[in-house]
Amino acid sequence: MNLKQLSELLGLSQTTISRALNGYPEVNAETRERVIKAASETGYRPSRAALRLATGKAGSLGLVMPVSEDRFSDIHFAEFQNGLAQECLAHEFHFVIIPAHPSKEEQAIRGLVHSGAVDAYYMAYLRANDPRIAMAKSLSVPFIVHGRSFGVAEDYPYLDVDNEAAFAHATKMLLDLGHRHFALLNGPKELDFAVRRQMGVERALKNAGLHLLPSATSNTVMTDEHGYLVMTDLLRQQQPPTAILCASTVLALGAVRAINDAGLVVGEDISVIAHDDDLPLLKPEHFRVPLTTTRSSLRDAGRRIAERLIADLTAPTSGPPLQELWQAELVVRASTGPAPNSV
Amino acid sequence: MNLKQLSELLGLSQTTISRALNGYPEVNAETRERVIKAASETGYRPSRAALRLATGKAGSLGLVMPVSEDRFSDIHFAEFQNGLAQECLAHEFHFVIIPAHPSKEEQAIRGLVHSGAVDAYYMAYLRANDPRIAMAKSLSVPFIVHGRSFGVAEDYPYLDVDNEAAFAHATKMLLDLGHRHFALLNGPKELDFAVRRQMGVERALKNAGLHLLPSATSNTVMTDEHGYLVMTDLLRQQQPPTAILCASTVLALGAVRAINDAGLVVGEDISVIAHDDDLPLLKPEHFRVPLTTTRSSLRDAGRRIAERLIADLTAPTSGPPLQELWQAELVVRASTGPAPNSV
Repeated sequence: MNLKQLSELLGLSQTTISRALNGYPEVNAETRERVIKAASETGYRPSRAALRLATGKAGSLGLVMPVSEDRFSDIHFAEFQNGLAQECLAHEFHFVIIPAHPSKEEQAIRGLVHSGAVDAYYMAYLRANDPRIAMAKSLSVPFIVHGRSFGVAEDYPYLDVDNEAAFAHATKMLLDLGHRHFALLNGPKELDFAVRRQMGVERALKNAGLHLLPSATSNTVMTDEHGYLVMTDLLRQQQPPTAILCASTVLALGAVRAINDAGLVVGEDISVIAHDDDLPLLKPEHFRVPLTTTRSSLRDAGRRIAERLIADLTAPTSGPPLQELWQAELVVRASTGPAPNSV
Repeated sequence: MNLKQLSELLGLSQTTISRALNGYPEVNAETRERVIKAASETGYRPSRAALRLATGKAGSLGLVMPVSEDRFSDIHFAEFQNGLAQECLAHEFHFVIIPAHPSKEEQAIRGLVHSGAVDAYYMAYLRANDPRIAMAKSLSVPFIVHGRSFGVAEDYPYLDVDNEAAFAHATKMLLDLGHRHFALLNGPKELDFAVRRQMGVERALKNAGLHLLPSATSNTVMTDEHGYLVMTDLLRQQQPPTAILCASTVLALGAVRAINDAGLVVGEDISVIAHDDDLPLLKPEHFRVPLTTTRSSLRDAGRRIAERLIADLTAPTSGPPLQELWQAELVVRASTGPAPNSV
């Protein structure tokens, strides 16, 4: 028994039935009683769509917001969320956010799905071999993964940036400029994007007969402070790197400050390339020495994920899961130059 | 008839009754029918609390997210939201966000409240004489205003920073350093905080027999770009200001760049004070010339508002609405110095 059938049976509009079952005062007691009785007798159970009809409530997308004291990823999350919000606004969707400790996101997603408060959801900040993908596939609510999970078979819907290729290209460019001493300021080790970016750097170096030293690789939360601290340490090494790859322009902000503090010049003494999520506040062209970047807009990713989730809901299709791998754009500015020794 | 009474009447637990009324499959058909019938006969209408009991769903706070192409306030909103999320996490609350065009926030709040999806909500980005306050008071869901609305009687619950006092103090300090030519890079004209900040500057100048020139006052969205453009224009004036007040460190970022581009030195040729929302990415102490600021943490405000809303829900009190006016802290760093003419 669905809403349409119940409507025909009772000779009442679908809206009236939904309102009656949801206790809306606009429906008089007699009608409500009749509807409740019929619903009970026929075993009718209101769907989300029926609830939406009753409440006039727009659809909702769910997301888990990572919350921890170290303020990791705040600005990146905000930028993604803004794209999502723009698309939701266009379709009269709202979104439901469950804040969760990074270690408890699995539980949070389960809660989100079971609450019935969301029509679809997305997952982000995936780790390598992330158990959330199997979990999401076992639940009945549509989802998209923002990113991927290294080590998990790719049979799920996702949107990702080709992080490995982006960092391989950036490394290759620095090799071509004569650099031989590299450092990678990366994000947290367990996150998929950090794994793939390191793979990209290692692949390009290996092709040139080089390798990335563990002492020149850092995994930290992506803040200005960490960029500064790591870079300061690197400059104290006996053979400091001349080519720096940063997983975020936020890390580069601190790294560049450390380089300046040491009296060195970006683009001359040290070359820097950072991944640019196109954060409006931190434009690479506004750095004192404009920053060479691998660029991919997080806001566009948020917009696209909302678009896909809403399409899944309004016009579900069968077929294999949609998978998109975006190529980052290498934008060359003044922060990269020939290696100092090779001049 | 409340849930407890219905429970006693039927000899069933409150949870079973809630689940039956919400169509949960754990309850067998016979019991469900009995519950639905009794609910209908007694006129019982499930409350949000009962629904929460049935679904195990945590409470929810609502907020409207301003969305517009100009990316106004993204980072400020994100910072506030992070404080809110931390507090929500501690109390197992989630939040529901409705994205809305700034001109349609009233409608969005109405939708939020009527959807039944939130237990309480907060309003922000208030304008002078904002009609949303009267509207919120007429609705039955608890709310708090972040900020205030100039021109509206203050009989509603709010948390605000004393923007007028903060900017009066900052102006007074610059006057004491000998400055006579001021400029204010402010936020959008219609927003309450911008109105009060301008009042603070004007009050302090008036006490010194000066006034703020319209040509030295700008109202823009608070981005790096606008700071740069406005400051570039100011420096082209016949008598450029030597004392700059910025409504955000984000505006100051652009303003400082324009000052540097003009070959001038911050703290020597031109003094700058900005309001600092304590954005983790944009620390005033990390500016090339560390920035003097009026500081008040937006994250703390988010945390406090969530705390108050959750307290309103879990232990409602009567009495006058709670009103908090936080004093910003004036933090003096190197961007302020004696006026060049007076040395």
